[in-house]
Amino acid sequence: MGIQDFKVPGFQFSGISAGIKKNGKKDLGLIYSEIPARVAGIFTTNAVKAAPVQVGMERIKKGVGQAIIINSGNANACTGSQGLKDARKISSMVARGLGIDEKLVFPSSTGVIGVPLPLRKFEDRVPELIQSLSPDGWMNTVEAIMTTDAFPKVEAATCRLKGKIVKLCGMVKGAGMIRPNMATMLSFLVTNANIKTSLLQRMLQKVADVTYNRITVDGDTSTNDTVLILANGMSGHPQLTHMDRDGEVFLAMLYRVCKNLAKSVVKDGEGATKLVEILIRGAKNGEDAKKAAYAIAHSPLVKTAFFGEDANWGRILCALGHCGIPINPNRIDVSFDQASIVKNGMGVGARLEEKAAEVIKKKSFKVTVDLHQGKGQFLVFTTDLSIDYVKINASYRS
Amino acid sequence: MGIQDFKVPGFQFSGISAGIKKNGKKDLGLIYSEIPARVAGIFTTNAVKAAPVQVGMERIKKGVGQAIIINSGNANACTGSQGLKDARKISSMVARGLGIDEKLVFPSSTGVIGVPLPLRKFEDRVPELIQSLSPDGWMNTVEAIMTTDAFPKVEAATCRLKGKIVKLCGMVKGAGMIRPNMATMLSFLVTNANIKTSLLQRMLQKVADVTYNRITVDGDTSTNDTVLILANGMSGHPQLTHMDRDGEVFLAMLYRVCKNLAKSVVKDGEGATKLVEILIRGAKNGEDAKKAAYAIAHSPLVKTAFFGEDANWGRILCALGHCGIPINPNRIDVSFDQASIVKNGMGVGARLEEKAAEVIKKKSFKVTVDLHQGKGQFLVFTTDLSIDYVKINASYRS
Repeated sequence: MGIQDFKVPGFQFSGISAGIKKNGKKDLGLIYSEIPARVAGIFTTNAVKAAPVQVGMERIKKGVGQAIIINSGNANACTGSQGLKDARKISSMVARGLGIDEKLVFPSSTGVIGVPLPLRKFEDRVPELIQSLSPDGWMNTVEAIMTTDAFPKVEAATCRLKGKIVKLCGMVKGAGMIRPNMATMLSFLVTNANIKTSLLQRMLQKVADVTYNRITVDGDTSTNDTVLILANGMSGHPQLTHMDRDGEVFLAMLYRVCKNLAKSVVKDGEGATKLVEILIRGAKNGEDAKKAAYAIAHSPLVKTAFFGEDANWGRILCALGHCGIPINPNRIDVSFDQASIVKNGMGVGARLEEKAAEVIKKKSFKVTVDLHQGKGQFLVFTTDLSIDYVKINASYRS
Repeated sequence: MGIQDFKVPGFQFSGISAGIKKNGKKDLGLIYSEIPARVAGIFTTNAVKAAPVQVGMERIKKGVGQAIIINSGNANACTGSQGLKDARKISSMVARGLGIDEKLVFPSSTGVIGVPLPLRKFEDRVPELIQSLSPDGWMNTVEAIMTTDAFPKVEAATCRLKGKIVKLCGMVKGAGMIRPNMATMLSFLVTNANIKTSLLQRMLQKVADVTYNRITVDGDTSTNDTVLILANGMSGHPQLTHMDRDGEVFLAMLYRVCKNLAKSVVKDGEGATKLVEILIRGAKNGEDAKKAAYAIAHSPLVKTAFFGEDANWGRILCALGHCGIPINPNRIDVSFDQASIVKNGMGVGARLEEKAAEVIKKKSFKVTVDLHQGKGQFLVFTTDLSIDYVKINASYRS
């Protein structure tokens, strides 16, 4: 996609290096709507909430926002009342520069926990950040929010609502994938659609539940996880106020964009060499299916076997056995893509297992488990656990 | 300790290579009591139970045992009704060779899941295994139960009960340490004490709860986990039937032996370079403390930071924040050994954090977290997550 794909009428973007990251890369980004926009958001459910998250949760109650200021390199988490003051101070710098109400600015941070923000660097560089705002600046902001991400993760889509062209652009910053709940995920979306705040919030929640929350244990998120969407209504169509046919059209677009962003986060999981879908079928209910899916997706032994391209299905059964739901081991079926590997709790035999052994060599494959208990289903996306995952996370701060 | 330390009156041991392991190392072991012994045991709570576990759980109901036949290289798990037949057949081979009742033989297996046992190899080699039984054979059995263990893990102790010398010897086979619940732990203990079965079982359970279960999430164990103790009573003292002063003496010895064995399992965690104690203090109750302790001990991000010798306390607070108990982030204190690193949820500052940074370079240290909510405590032992962990587990079967 070319740069023109990430233009949304009424929005401007910028991203610069302010020296917060040690490596000199871009670390300060700004998203700005020329007029106040409806804003909806989802914030971490971790009991330890970073200062910018606390500020954002307070400000979003009004349902209006006009700017998002994001820094990487420092999470401003576990920084006490000073952290809160700093988050507010930064948003007031931005508000002053833009000539808008400070309450319309949402601060967001990612990076090392427990270190005070280098406020001076913000004071020095926010003016430049504002000056460099541009309708073409999208990729600069994207770069500024990246941490261990290997590549930028962006999506854009267009639809027609009540006769008007509506644009939606999204960006996401990835997360360590072995336990996605413990590394920060930030996603920012902007659209020129005109949508009532309460409806926008419902849509975002609905979509996040089947996209971002499928790569993250719900309720188990990092100190900083944030998803924000700004809708400035500049497309000029009558406001969507409830879930009618037009609402469905926008919802479908939002789903498509967030699903692709979520998948790209998994693909870029720290050190990941494989993208693996885990589908549980035939559970007693959805909740049971979810427990089973995460037990497999979080098992380091299963994940290292994926990395080693070892179709070690015993580890999958072992994970199921302790996932906390009642199971009948003798009724479990497992397949890798189309290749059956376990039937009634037992291996299908060396000859047939070779087919599954071929599947696991692929960059991307699907593990399907049928528990034969009912109709409960759950799908999660995960990765393998590689040597590079350890290397990246052992040296993150150094 | 010399070989004489692992002699227990009335017990004989052997261990040979039967070609079950691909690498030609010892893989078949036998523990034999010259007379029927009281037996107590703890078996995996995983819903997927290996065939030998199922057989053992059935046989232990009588409270009497005389032999334990153990193989490594194949777990005989997820092998269906054939696996059960095989486990029984092996114990009957051993019973026939020893001239004892088949019901007094406990089979035990560890290794790859889902592959039928190579029964012919047992038929060929069990006679030799029996022939090589010897009071001095302890270390041969120990070698035969090892899988990815880097060193043999054994303990011996002596006490006096009602005027008689009583010996207790134990061995344990280690387990992957990142999620100990998912790799097999086998421990076998023998003693010449004379203890009523029900008391022996109570003692074993009590001790396991604060030793083996501190390195394993209770309820979350592998398909094959087993702890067995044989007490043949040949010391000649009057039977211990309830928890009197002599009972306390034996219990203390059992605790000492199992604690050291459990710690040695952690030390030998796959690829481990650090032994870390995690102590939660000041939780509302013990159950909360336990959840908090395991959230830290199982966090791959915390564990890779240990490996990288990075005193990244933000990851510890993040793990606490999503561990499922209500916490007040602003009241959390954390220290590494004696060095305080977090006070009231915030870092103590770069200068003081340097002290903690020194502690994390040690081979062994203790992380203490005070939640300031009440008197609940919980201690677990864990390791770091190293590059070698991934290497070992990615290539376990190849």
